[in-house]
Amino acid sequence: MDGTNGDNQAQTIYDLVVVGAGCAGASGAMYASRMNLKTIMVAELPGGLITTTHLVENWPGIKSISGPDLASALVDHATSFGVPLANERVTDVSMIQPKTEGGKQSGYIVKTGSNTYKTKTVLFATGTKYKKMEVKGEEEFANKGVSYCALCDGAFFKGKTVCIVGSGDSAAKEALLLSEHCPKVYLFVRGDRLKAEPVNYDRVMAKSDKIEVRYQTQITEIMGTKSVEKVKLNTGEEIAMQGVFVAIGHIALSDTAKTVGVALNEKGEIMINRKSETNVPGIFAAGDVADTVFKQAITGAAEAVTAAYFAFDYIGKTQIEC
Amino acid sequence: MDGTNGDNQAQTIYDLVVVGAGCAGASGAMYASRMNLKTIMVAELPGGLITTTHLVENWPGIKSISGPDLASALVDHATSFGVPLANERVTDVSMIQPKTEGGKQSGYIVKTGSNTYKTKTVLFATGTKYKKMEVKGEEEFANKGVSYCALCDGAFFKGKTVCIVGSGDSAAKEALLLSEHCPKVYLFVRGDRLKAEPVNYDRVMAKSDKIEVRYQTQITEIMGTKSVEKVKLNTGEEIAMQGVFVAIGHIALSDTAKTVGVALNEKGEIMINRKSETNVPGIFAAGDVADTVFKQAITGAAEAVTAAYFAFDYIGKTQIEC
Repeated sequence: MDGTNGDNQAQTIYDLVVVGAGCAGASGAMYASRMNLKTIMVAELPGGLITTTHLVENWPGIKSISGPDLASALVDHATSFGVPLANERVTDVSMIQPKTEGGKQSGYIVKTGSNTYKTKTVLFATGTKYKKMEVKGEEEFANKGVSYCALCDGAFFKGKTVCIVGSGDSAAKEALLLSEHCPKVYLFVRGDRLKAEPVNYDRVMAKSDKIEVRYQTQITEIMGTKSVEKVKLNTGEEIAMQGVFVAIGHIALSDTAKTVGVALNEKGEIMINRKSETNVPGIFAAGDVADTVFKQAITGAAEAVTAAYFAFDYIGKTQIEC
Repeated sequence: MDGTNGDNQAQTIYDLVVVGAGCAGASGAMYASRMNLKTIMVAELPGGLITTTHLVENWPGIKSISGPDLASALVDHATSFGVPLANERVTDVSMIQPKTEGGKQSGYIVKTGSNTYKTKTVLFATGTKYKKMEVKGEEEFANKGVSYCALCDGAFFKGKTVCIVGSGDSAAKEALLLSEHCPKVYLFVRGDRLKAEPVNYDRVMAKSDKIEVRYQTQITEIMGTKSVEKVKLNTGEEIAMQGVFVAIGHIALSDTAKTVGVALNEKGEIMINRKSETNVPGIFAAGDVADTVFKQAITGAAEAVTAAYFAFDYIGKTQIEC
């Protein structure tokens, strides 16, 4: 089932619509189906952002797996329990009956470009998107030397000089990956510390023949003709290179949740409690879009599993108008 | 390394001692080692309670694996990153410097029968044990029809007659879950009341076509040849069935934690927050021993991963006297 059967979907009332099908969404959907909740995953990018990760070595029980393979395993796990995946972008979530009375709660309508899904509960597992530097040339040279995914694009820069911009673990890992392809990789760190997982920090340091870490360094402009040719730094220096990889963080994809009244923190992340509940009855969140401090694939998956359980619990004890 | 090098251990100061090496403990240890924390797992039963489960179908990403194999994969993952496993029973955890001043915190001494480990932080991932009925046949038919987890094993009894033993909300919920798979589910309640949440009580009543509640009923013997074939009741009656699910509770293995001042809830579970912190600085808890409502292998693992991160964070910002 691909969810493309148009208006017919409006006739079905789901127990749970999972918005997103990454590590969190797929894990939650798998659990929900095991609780016999009528569940569907609706996702623009099945597999989620981990599909852009080269190697995952910290999914407990699997010593090493590519991001795309882990994502596939998780999505397959859910679909093997009968959860359909609709490859559609959710454009809106709204209450069916905004003015319920007497302790009753409203169900929700989840809209995509091509479908409308009625559901008793919603799990936002919408993840994040890459943050941009917002510097001159970044937009112009997007996909012409500027990339947000070393795994996706690194191999196109074989033998070239590139840089990776960022201060976190992702930046460190992407620098390592790029150093497999490129003889020279600059790692531009805005502050004075590379806040990578220690194991990855050590690996970067051990590759100083290829990876040059520059602290308190930012790109102020990306220059070139048809594609990237050099970058200008806050120090005034200009360095010739053909690739600029950006790993400066993520933006929580919480706009749709916000519209239906879900409370966000100052970072735009969905605030959840230990039950993965949001402030809105029947709406749950999990994974990178949530306000968890230490965001990992495994923690997001667990949050979604927890959400599935409390959705089951909520449906059982609530009069829901759909 | 097997941790049996006696008094020498007292010379080493660990960053993190993980008490337990089940799904939670092993996952936390793996993450801790990736953060370069000097970590050791000390566990009486490496692998934990999941080693008693026939098949696990709900560890996200792995469609089907035996409990022992999952446990091995998790423990191997941690040891592959260099975390030693000491197969010893922890008998005591105490502060090294109970009277620290000026914002300093004490480290801990973890004692086993044969060793003493000094450490900056401790993660209790000690799990629970199932409360047993202590009746004839219960031990003999464990995993041969007798199960302590309907969610884990219910699906293996599709089409069979089973019973669930218990008087609480868990028993009611497990009866409901079993009724999704089984045409006939006996619910044996010891007293004269099923003390389930009203909603679950109502649901059980609404499923009287499948669930038969018997009050003041206890199993006195479980009988069979290779697997469960029937049970004998205190009424003298014998009923043919293939599965006996026991949901008379768990016992949180929290005694050692309690001794060092860790706060427990009324069920004896260790109270944690979203950082997996307990009330005692430097002491964390995760998995079945913690006060999480929906306890699953994946949620316990995530709690331990979170604990590893916040142990790392704590060590980085705290003066710890060892």
